[in-house]
Amino acid sequence: ITKIAEADEVVDKGHYRHFMQKEIFEQARVIGNTLQGRIGQHKVLEQVFGTSAADIFDQVQRVQIIACGTSYHSGLVCKYWLEDWAGIPCDIEVASEYRYRKVVVSPGTLFVTISQSGETADTLAALRLAKELNYLASLTICNVPNSSLARESDLVFMTQAGPEIGVASTKAFTTQLVSLQLLTIVLGRRHQLSAEREAELVEALHSLPSLCEEVLSLDPEVLEMSEHFSEKHHSLFLGRGPQYPVAMEGALKLKEISYIHAESYPAGELKHGPLALVDSDMPIVAVAPNNDLLEKLKSNLEEVQARGGMLFVFADKDAGFKNNGSTKVINLPHVPASLEPIIYTLPLQQLSYHVAVLKGTDVDQPRNLAKSVTVE
Amino acid sequence: ITKIAEADEVVDKGHYRHFMQKEIFEQARVIGNTLQGRIGQHKVLEQVFGTSAADIFDQVQRVQIIACGTSYHSGLVCKYWLEDWAGIPCDIEVASEYRYRKVVVSPGTLFVTISQSGETADTLAALRLAKELNYLASLTICNVPNSSLARESDLVFMTQAGPEIGVASTKAFTTQLVSLQLLTIVLGRRHQLSAEREAELVEALHSLPSLCEEVLSLDPEVLEMSEHFSEKHHSLFLGRGPQYPVAMEGALKLKEISYIHAESYPAGELKHGPLALVDSDMPIVAVAPNNDLLEKLKSNLEEVQARGGMLFVFADKDAGFKNNGSTKVINLPHVPASLEPIIYTLPLQQLSYHVAVLKGTDVDQPRNLAKSVTVE
Repeated sequence: ITKIAEADEVVDKGHYRHFMQKEIFEQARVIGNTLQGRIGQHKVLEQVFGTSAADIFDQVQRVQIIACGTSYHSGLVCKYWLEDWAGIPCDIEVASEYRYRKVVVSPGTLFVTISQSGETADTLAALRLAKELNYLASLTICNVPNSSLARESDLVFMTQAGPEIGVASTKAFTTQLVSLQLLTIVLGRRHQLSAEREAELVEALHSLPSLCEEVLSLDPEVLEMSEHFSEKHHSLFLGRGPQYPVAMEGALKLKEISYIHAESYPAGELKHGPLALVDSDMPIVAVAPNNDLLEKLKSNLEEVQARGGMLFVFADKDAGFKNNGSTKVINLPHVPASLEPIIYTLPLQQLSYHVAVLKGTDVDQPRNLAKSVTVE
Repeated sequence: ITKIAEADEVVDKGHYRHFMQKEIFEQARVIGNTLQGRIGQHKVLEQVFGTSAADIFDQVQRVQIIACGTSYHSGLVCKYWLEDWAGIPCDIEVASEYRYRKVVVSPGTLFVTISQSGETADTLAALRLAKELNYLASLTICNVPNSSLARESDLVFMTQAGPEIGVASTKAFTTQLVSLQLLTIVLGRRHQLSAEREAELVEALHSLPSLCEEVLSLDPEVLEMSEHFSEKHHSLFLGRGPQYPVAMEGALKLKEISYIHAESYPAGELKHGPLALVDSDMPIVAVAPNNDLLEKLKSNLEEVQARGGMLFVFADKDAGFKNNGSTKVINLPHVPASLEPIIYTLPLQQLSYHVAVLKGTDVDQPRNLAKSVTVE
């Protein structure tokens, strides 16, 4: 019966112009679905990872994440979380690189794959290879029940994003982030994440769906900003810390559906080369929550402006950015730091969507790309 | 006396038009200098790492590399070498990210910094931070004696590149690769690198300077290729395995001095998004040694051609690439796999140089960049 309900949902864009747009606006709801039954008032309910999960999690000393494309970006955010919150070392690599080199597996390493479809060819091949190596166990985070990755992994955690039709992934990414945050918490509990800290994180997660609604309602402002982009051929996306993968994902969206050559950098690397590209034809997009990296980011952005670069900043309302001739700012509500990568992703998705619509590209079926990459 | 000799060398471009060009052509010689006294007939002479090196190396279980810009790319190659040849796990991160997050240090981890100047602000700050953490010891690979990194590290290995004046690093990069290969060998000896394998690697290193000469003599062909680039605004650089960081470095060179927006990807990631960018305005540069990744790379490149992308391939002469309307090939001699990242870097440097000269940019002092980044 669930299957039929899903199938109905597939063919219906509702009042939206594109599936991608519908999927962007669904995120508050499907993030709620992904949390539903997985968190209590103060705790993550770890039995949802499966009956053998607790035994396996007790033995985890290290995490290896493997993914491709957008899923790789969600894994990169998780590395920051695992090392910072849980004190668990984490390595991450794209599947097409991992599977063709000799890797060294440390004792107690959990092998984690991330894939919307659960059928990504390189990721699946990496899982099969990993089973020959001495990993502790395998866990997959995917969105399709009974997919190959789900069937072949020891543990499965389903994102509840519902069918994603737009080729450019949106709600799959943010529900992956939510899922990875739950994984970080249950692993971290066994390491340096205290019950108090867990309660704080879970409290923040309870507020996430309504924060998503609030941020998604900034859509008209993002549309206005996108008008400055549609004639551009280039862009650099900058972030620091867990917002660097968010910038990577923002740049990938713009590439995928608007065919604008957008590239991302950790903001601190700008001065080691890419700053040479910056002139008035190179807009810079920055993700600027109000955290302890803000001042460093601001000084990186000043370098950009001094070279004539136009700035587009998604900033915390208290971060002190002002709209002027060379800076366009969209202010976001202040959110708990643990939610920043999820929240700041939303307007970047909207930006790429609106730019693509203005450029008249085929938003849901961009050229050259397939939804599920089942070839190597 | 050495200092005065160096100072003389600085001010003299000889018969070259730019310092960068001189420094590209110096590489056979300075790589020879970097090997001089560091390798015997069949072995690396590990005492050159310092008197306390052997004791420290005995305890190394893992390596953490920290660097910025071009030096970061040399470290990325070393990760492949350490894991593949030595069986030693290696993590690498850009300094500006590493120093602002909480990292987890595994027992027996050697902390390695790489910097031409030895004064890179973020890298130096990362070293100072690392000293507060429980690393086994610190080692720096740098090109300036008595630099801050050299003074503050437990072990120092000097590249013998001589003064590098061009802001875009060339000979510093390849001598870093040579130095990192020597480090991989002395560490690997204590793990899974056999004496036979070491002898093979050292034999290959003995042949490296003359192979560099041979490849650098392809300059006229690279100049011809560069004429197809000077009107372009974009480019994608592709590689797989240890050639992925080589592609990253090739793209960075083009960015730095020609201001062409060049971006690199591991070739297998192309289909997860960036393929949408490919059309006749987006030339693709690929690095294609004749190794076991060749067939996978070829199938990635066929996808590019099917979408109208023009291909520029630096290939092993036996790799089976043919010049035609949509593919320009420069054939390189077959070289031992261990030398591929060093050898394939050379024509990519020449490509960026010639493109920049054709575009009339200030090759040795590109806009917005400083030679040694001593600010954060």
